[in-house]
Amino acid sequence: MTRQQLVHHIREKESFLCVGLDPDPARIPASYGGDLLRFNQDIIDATRDSCVAYKPNTAFYEALGLEGINLLRDTIAYIGDQHLVIADAKRGDIGNTSRYYARFAFETLGADAITVAPYMGADSVQPFLEYTGKWTILLALTSNPGSHDFQHTPQEDGPPLFAKVMRRAAEWGTPDQLMFVCGATQAERFTELRRHAPQHFFLVPGIGAQGGDLEGVCRHGMTDEAGLLVNSSRGIIYADDPGSAARELQEEMGRLLNKYAPGLFQ
Amino acid sequence: MTRQQLVHHIREKESFLCVGLDPDPARIPASYGGDLLRFNQDIIDATRDSCVAYKPNTAFYEALGLEGINLLRDTIAYIGDQHLVIADAKRGDIGNTSRYYARFAFETLGADAITVAPYMGADSVQPFLEYTGKWTILLALTSNPGSHDFQHTPQEDGPPLFAKVMRRAAEWGTPDQLMFVCGATQAERFTELRRHAPQHFFLVPGIGAQGGDLEGVCRHGMTDEAGLLVNSSRGIIYADDPGSAARELQEEMGRLLNKYAPGLFQ
Repeated sequence: MTRQQLVHHIREKESFLCVGLDPDPARIPASYGGDLLRFNQDIIDATRDSCVAYKPNTAFYEALGLEGINLLRDTIAYIGDQHLVIADAKRGDIGNTSRYYARFAFETLGADAITVAPYMGADSVQPFLEYTGKWTILLALTSNPGSHDFQHTPQEDGPPLFAKVMRRAAEWGTPDQLMFVCGATQAERFTELRRHAPQHFFLVPGIGAQGGDLEGVCRHGMTDEAGLLVNSSRGIIYADDPGSAARELQEEMGRLLNKYAPGLFQ
Repeated sequence: MTRQQLVHHIREKESFLCVGLDPDPARIPASYGGDLLRFNQDIIDATRDSCVAYKPNTAFYEALGLEGINLLRDTIAYIGDQHLVIADAKRGDIGNTSRYYARFAFETLGADAITVAPYMGADSVQPFLEYTGKWTILLALTSNPGSHDFQHTPQEDGPPLFAKVMRRAAEWGTPDQLMFVCGATQAERFTELRRHAPQHFFLVPGIGAQGGDLEGVCRHGMTDEAGLLVNSSRGIIYADDPGSAARELQEEMGRLLNKYAPGLFQ
């Protein structure tokens, strides 16, 4: 999916919602009898019109063993091509090896995008960027408490590590193929995050269970074409009515788009 | 496998060799007819007496799709319990998710150890450390060119990022459960690496195809109980005679152990 197509979907749906498909066998309703594919399909059917992206986290599928990889591939196939599919895998290795991870995400699974960890630098990220029409989503400032351990520390030359990651990576990939993960729990940093990458899309986890600030993220981080994909996982898939939960977020996002990116609709 | 057991194997075999099991379907001999399990089994049989650890890189298996995960599990089962099995997966996510990666590596795959990326901080690493009798191997200073992008940069408070990672992580895990990845291509930094973690084992990639300096690593990085696992992947598994290639490294390692860790044999 191209950036133009993604922006088109955001405009049409008045939504920049990404639904996190992280099924935990211990938490899905008993009525499914453990059929996680049917659970995912029901979530997708209920939320399809409210969101522009789906983000299965590969950890949940791998933990299920062999069947999990089947489930992941079948889930992605079921989503189809009208949504951006993000394999949330946080991969990254030496170039020789990252090539294999890229093949797994983009070819085996059929995802449009993959999340990647920046610690190993340029040659660990490059193999993902080499795929035409696919997206690399690099961790910048994550939503978890541990983000304070290393990401916030100022570097010798001034900016904190997350800013250095964003500035360097912006040299590796264009806004048409590279996004950054920026956690909603750090909404007050979004003005700064936007300064480092004015045009790149941000994938924003951390609203809902992690307590992030959606309005703050939009106030400080929205661009003329939205520039945000905000993810909700547990808040939707374990809601009594996942469709309603997604529509509620969609409505709020429509309001925020009209408030902070009115140019999108002109 | 406990640290005592690992040191025992190193002493008995006079070897701290780790064999990287990264089978590339395009490179294995045609005589295998694409049977990667039989290829891995032959490598294991030929190198079993010369090494103390095996390190399958999960990327190579995932790229094979569903059969790959089967292959990985069957390979690990074939290795048995006399070698440390490292799932080289470079995982790491928010705590809620890292738990699933830990379950995948330690329960689904049956590995003894997993490599983990530090970027997301303490709560992304903790779930791996919670497994008794298992090892977490954290990326510190990697062997690839991209290690210079972020890992070497001095932090506001002085030491470079990799040193900060090692110092902080040494507070999270003991030398009985935590190791660090330190690339052999940076042998001149091993004195410094050892200063940050005097007792922890280092998993050392980068000799062979990547051109690392084995003697330099030992001169600067060896402890009284070796404290090193040095990996070779392509240099062994694609050698004309993998058994000979492994024995050659074992002999060199025996010499280095006697030279730099003579106390091990007293």
